[in-house]
Amino acid sequence: MPISRPTLDQEAGVLGPNGWRLACVLGLLATSVPPTGAGTPPLLPMPAEVTAGAGVLPIGSALPVWFDGPADPLLQRAVERLARRLAAATGIPIRVEPAATADRALLRIHGPAADLRFPSLDADESHALDVIPRGIELRAAGTAGVLRGLATVAQLVVPTAEGYGLQSITIRDRPRFAWRGLMIDTSRHFVPFDVLVRQLDAMEAVKLNVLHLHLTDDEGFRLESRLHPKLHGEGAEGEYYTQDEIRALVTRARDRGIRVVPEIDAPAHTKSWLVGYPQLATRPGPYRMGPDDAVRSALLDPTREEVYAFLDGLVAEVSTLFPDPFFHVGGDEVASPEWDESPSVQAFMKAHGIADRRALQAHFTRRLQAILTRHGRTLVGWDEVLDHGLSKDAVVQTWRSSKLVARATAAGRRTVVSGGYYLDQGLPSTAHYAIDPTDPRAYGLLPREAEALRGTPLAAYVGEANVLDAAAVVTPAQEALVLGGEAALWTEIVTAEMLDGRVWPRTAAIAERLWSPRSVRDSASMQRRLLAVSRDLERLGLRHEVDPRLMVERMAPGEADALLALWSAVEPVRFYSRLMKRMMGGPAAQLAPLNRMADAAVPESLEALRLRVDVEDAVARKETAGPRVERIRARLTAWRGARSGLEALQGRAPGLAELTPLAADLEVLATGGLVALDAWQRGAAVEPRAVAATLAVAGRLDAAAKAAGYLASLTTPPPPAEVELAAVGAVRELLRAAGAPTASPAVR
Amino acid sequence: MPISRPTLDQEAGVLGPNGWRLACVLGLLATSVPPTGAGTPPLLPMPAEVTAGAGVLPIGSALPVWFDGPADPLLQRAVERLARRLAAATGIPIRVEPAATADRALLRIHGPAADLRFPSLDADESHALDVIPRGIELRAAGTAGVLRGLATVAQLVVPTAEGYGLQSITIRDRPRFAWRGLMIDTSRHFVPFDVLVRQLDAMEAVKLNVLHLHLTDDEGFRLESRLHPKLHGEGAEGEYYTQDEIRALVTRARDRGIRVVPEIDAPAHTKSWLVGYPQLATRPGPYRMGPDDAVRSALLDPTREEVYAFLDGLVAEVSTLFPDPFFHVGGDEVASPEWDESPSVQAFMKAHGIADRRALQAHFTRRLQAILTRHGRTLVGWDEVLDHGLSKDAVVQTWRSSKLVARATAAGRRTVVSGGYYLDQGLPSTAHYAIDPTDPRAYGLLPREAEALRGTPLAAYVGEANVLDAAAVVTPAQEALVLGGEAALWTEIVTAEMLDGRVWPRTAAIAERLWSPRSVRDSASMQRRLLAVSRDLERLGLRHEVDPRLMVERMAPGEADALLALWSAVEPVRFYSRLMKRMMGGPAAQLAPLNRMADAAVPESLEALRLRVDVEDAVARKETAGPRVERIRARLTAWRGARSGLEALQGRAPGLAELTPLAADLEVLATGGLVALDAWQRGAAVEPRAVAATLAVAGRLDAAAKAAGYLASLTTPPPPAEVELAAVGAVRELLRAAGAPTASPAVR
Repeated sequence: MPISRPTLDQEAGVLGPNGWRLACVLGLLATSVPPTGAGTPPLLPMPAEVTAGAGVLPIGSALPVWFDGPADPLLQRAVERLARRLAAATGIPIRVEPAATADRALLRIHGPAADLRFPSLDADESHALDVIPRGIELRAAGTAGVLRGLATVAQLVVPTAEGYGLQSITIRDRPRFAWRGLMIDTSRHFVPFDVLVRQLDAMEAVKLNVLHLHLTDDEGFRLESRLHPKLHGEGAEGEYYTQDEIRALVTRARDRGIRVVPEIDAPAHTKSWLVGYPQLATRPGPYRMGPDDAVRSALLDPTREEVYAFLDGLVAEVSTLFPDPFFHVGGDEVASPEWDESPSVQAFMKAHGIADRRALQAHFTRRLQAILTRHGRTLVGWDEVLDHGLSKDAVVQTWRSSKLVARATAAGRRTVVSGGYYLDQGLPSTAHYAIDPTDPRAYGLLPREAEALRGTPLAAYVGEANVLDAAAVVTPAQEALVLGGEAALWTEIVTAEMLDGRVWPRTAAIAERLWSPRSVRDSASMQRRLLAVSRDLERLGLRHEVDPRLMVERMAPGEADALLALWSAVEPVRFYSRLMKRMMGGPAAQLAPLNRMADAAVPESLEALRLRVDVEDAVARKETAGPRVERIRARLTAWRGARSGLEALQGRAPGLAELTPLAADLEVLATGGLVALDAWQRGAAVEPRAVAATLAVAGRLDAAAKAAGYLASLTTPPPPAEVELAAVGAVRELLRAAGAPTASPAVR
Repeated sequence: MPISRPTLDQEAGVLGPNGWRLACVLGLLATSVPPTGAGTPPLLPMPAEVTAGAGVLPIGSALPVWFDGPADPLLQRAVERLARRLAAATGIPIRVEPAATADRALLRIHGPAADLRFPSLDADESHALDVIPRGIELRAAGTAGVLRGLATVAQLVVPTAEGYGLQSITIRDRPRFAWRGLMIDTSRHFVPFDVLVRQLDAMEAVKLNVLHLHLTDDEGFRLESRLHPKLHGEGAEGEYYTQDEIRALVTRARDRGIRVVPEIDAPAHTKSWLVGYPQLATRPGPYRMGPDDAVRSALLDPTREEVYAFLDGLVAEVSTLFPDPFFHVGGDEVASPEWDESPSVQAFMKAHGIADRRALQAHFTRRLQAILTRHGRTLVGWDEVLDHGLSKDAVVQTWRSSKLVARATAAGRRTVVSGGYYLDQGLPSTAHYAIDPTDPRAYGLLPREAEALRGTPLAAYVGEANVLDAAAVVTPAQEALVLGGEAALWTEIVTAEMLDGRVWPRTAAIAERLWSPRSVRDSASMQRRLLAVSRDLERLGLRHEVDPRLMVERMAPGEADALLALWSAVEPVRFYSRLMKRMMGGPAAQLAPLNRMADAAVPESLEALRLRVDVEDAVARKETAGPRVERIRARLTAWRGARSGLEALQGRAPGLAELTPLAADLEVLATGGLVALDAWQRGAAVEPRAVAATLAVAGRLDAAAKAAGYLASLTTPPPPAEVELAAVGAVRELLRAAGAPTASPAVR
């Protein structure tokens, strides 16, 4: 891209609402045009309206800032953060200084006065951002709008022949949804404080604004309670957040315009509470920490006043720590038979005319809502609470099916959508990206699948929500009740060192779904921008690229090349077969270390994605030589060599036996890919026999992928290595480019 | 390596003092035997006495610990740290628990009672460590010995086919020197607190025990002073350590058995003091922060009582923060003419019979020593203070020449050696490793070089120390006065993101020089172990491998392959030509960002080293195929492709023009390397003409390297890119293996 020195006559007009023109100009949306190269900023989420200018604003060592009006200290800190991000992206030490006059500023912020209620659900995040080669102008009516605009500025860095600059651009932006969250389960595996803290930086970068902390579950009560000290004292094995840490987290989040919503999950998922307070339980204790075959679940006893008194105190204490008015009470998966089996609970139900387990939970949730109301808090619950007769202000978080979005909004409920955004299902970014929060058919079982579940133990919380409202619709009036959505990471099989790799960069795709206009849907464009954002996040301190590699490296210190090559080609099996196997395997299986290839592998292999993008680009540009083609060859060569490399490690590294068949398949795939690449480079035809074995393997892998799925994963054990190959797509693309057959006769 | 399940009859006898037998068994010391493979723990520093056993102790999720005697909380925290390191190295969550009886413990510590004076220079660091397949036994007379033994345990992790274990081993260890330090200049570029903190983890891992903080210099006074608040308030541009941070650092260091020695450098290097307190200066102010052509240096006025009163308060305040009895007062480089030019200073000298500038500094240092003594502190100074007539307890830190080790110890001074251990000179680990602290000829100018300097401005602080005592010797009695040494990093051209890459892993080589017996000197063995330690440190949180790559990546986001390939083959030019160019270039040059290839490049390219090791191993094992050979091919192929890759980036990334000639040389080198590799694999002869161009380039590069050197770097400007190629060694080795000529006729 030709870079010109600052001039002022390079501005272009503003564009329509979907950013299409810029997207095409920048090569962001269409794969048939040249892809994003150095010099083009990869914006993610895509703004509502955007027009690229032709010049760049050179980045120097001083950033004079002018605040139009009193400078909110929170915004001053945000500008300091921007300067640090720009410094990290350029290596230029950047000093923020107040400009003497507006004219002398490089960054002019027409911002609001300090907003003491900030951040809140109704914060105005809209803003106008104009970058020209002489400066940056950012206008917003609210604090949140300034923060979001600054996050965009950090994505405008382009390298030039002379150094670094910010791309000239005109942006008018506002979010589609006000609630754009990330839920992290801190209970199943504890998430150390510093790991949690760095998520805030990544969230700010992609304009997420709610951190939902699942703080309690059977496996651990992760919050210090001074009122009920045995909650964290006996229910967390020493791994919990102190109140000081929570306060620091909330402060840091507020600085970034991120609300923190606590979740205290009840009445199920409460075993950790009962270790210290067995008197709250339906079944008599004792309860103990750790996997326990005798106690697979534990429910609070909703018939005892003591339980509500306990909860009242807990809600009061938690509310002092989390200023946000929303308070998540869980309410999911009350599936165990404890209430049915308890004579005293049954007697209570009879006495009060409570018909069944669901009605009893509704009774509990209503009592809890009254407690929350008393403490100035609004109830949020998982979609089970939809039927609990709550007052109108309660918020429903859907997870079992998109049909529940229709049901909840039809019932006049505000709704937060997580169905389709479960990060622990191990899906590629494109799967989540395709889910529109307002589409009642976007996520859930097919009717015949749901029908097949009827009467099975799974049906209680997976099936019923799916079969209901088969013809569900979401009207425009109902859409207005959809507050937004949350990516959700459950951590049964996610340790601290795996966490970043399971959250990022995929969550950026969900962030775009929640921020950008509905019409921004080109997943190929999104994936290209995701690769850029991934590196940006790594620079911010996230560890999703480095930690997984370190996990592989330790399997064979100093000679892990073959393992790393295999790692770059595999992804953990989708959905829940790994989890089911672990949960069903008894305490030993539940305590088994998460240090195998399936744990190091990430749900969307960035290396496989980079290869696919390279192949697409080489084909689109008809390149048969050069760095891109060399990169394709190097990657395929490494993949082809993984099998023999693994063989050379036999006996000296753990878990190799289970990987051998995968490496063998990869060798065959890569060999065929190299045959096709040779042919492509020479302009020659591929001899079909030379790729027959490759096509056979590709066909077998595709068939296996087709047979997999959410329901199947609940009942079918995973393959031994618990990973699948992510290499097929790029190889097929190469075969196609070289004019080779792309399916084996057997499969066709 | 065959791994057997735990048995008890596998212990071997203890070995002689130099660890030779184990070293050979493990392939650590000799390059002619098979190199370290998975299954062999790479110990660094090498212990004094060591014998490997045949089995492994399997690592599980519980670590029952038995303390023989009362358990010092400091040691309990150290065991927790060990568990975290083992967890990070294996992916196994490890819980430390007190063993019910000694028999049931996996780790038995026969430790000392809590030592309140700890850490101190006379702490006993010796220990005995026995790992057998049933458990770990660690015996030490002092807290420090336990800490050092635990650091060794963390290096014993070996992967096995079944999982992970600790190598059976018998170790009797003790350090050669009691003072093993790392000095970091926090002034020239500020070192953020978290960057400083993680150095402690790395130091503990390689058994360093002194963190020497150069806290003040012209560029910044980095310590909060409540007594003289304008020191950090006006002399640090907001970048300084709060007293709370210092206390936290010292506490964290103490936990790791690391003393923290503050350096307050005076009377030169004090410009930052004078911004707030110009009344202390020799020349009238005002002084201002930042590069300033008018004020290149600034000296305190040693003739004014006010200066000593100020220092007295400062020493008292600093002493409350740093409990260590040693206090570094700098004292180096009083080279500016200010004292000579000041009438009042000249009058004072005349009145007091002070002959010259050096004698005046001696007067100052003696006054300062009296102040330190009053506050219970022992003076440490750079080797200039040797002639200042100080009382006997003062410690001299040598830097200009190893001859000063002889002079200082001959004068009865305790000595800490840094000459030869300056990390900012950009030397490979082997250069520092070859310097024995007690060898008076180990480091410094050749006599004829020193002679050539006579009368030049450089001579004052470089030359004189080198020409003195040409026949210097260090007798055994003098050796006893050598307390140890310190690796030293000056940060004129080292930013926070570069710091880890400039310190690690090279400092581990210096750590071995200071810890291990003098006889441990095989640098090829050290470099192999260094590669393993490097990954271990990265897992501990150090960023020397990831940060430099991120620096390169930002030059061409998403398409930096060619730049990364070039990066892996280059090292910054040695010694000081980069620094001199920058310092002589005026304020603009001094403020230029450090974001080029020369800044991202590390002084010892680990990738080039890995290639060299691979080539040596392939040759030694006569391997012509397999993963190692594939790795060699992949690396050379990437190097060969860097030039065309850079060409494809032209105009879109900064600083490419200066890199083009390097990439062209690298292409020629790698092409020849690939010719040789082909021949090696086919067992065929190399056609000399096919490598003639390669030999010509290699010859030119070798000649250039030969012409470079410390003195030359002070007077000769660097090449435009300020890097040199590190690729020659491995290519020559390949040529040799393939029976090709290894020198071009022109050079031969």
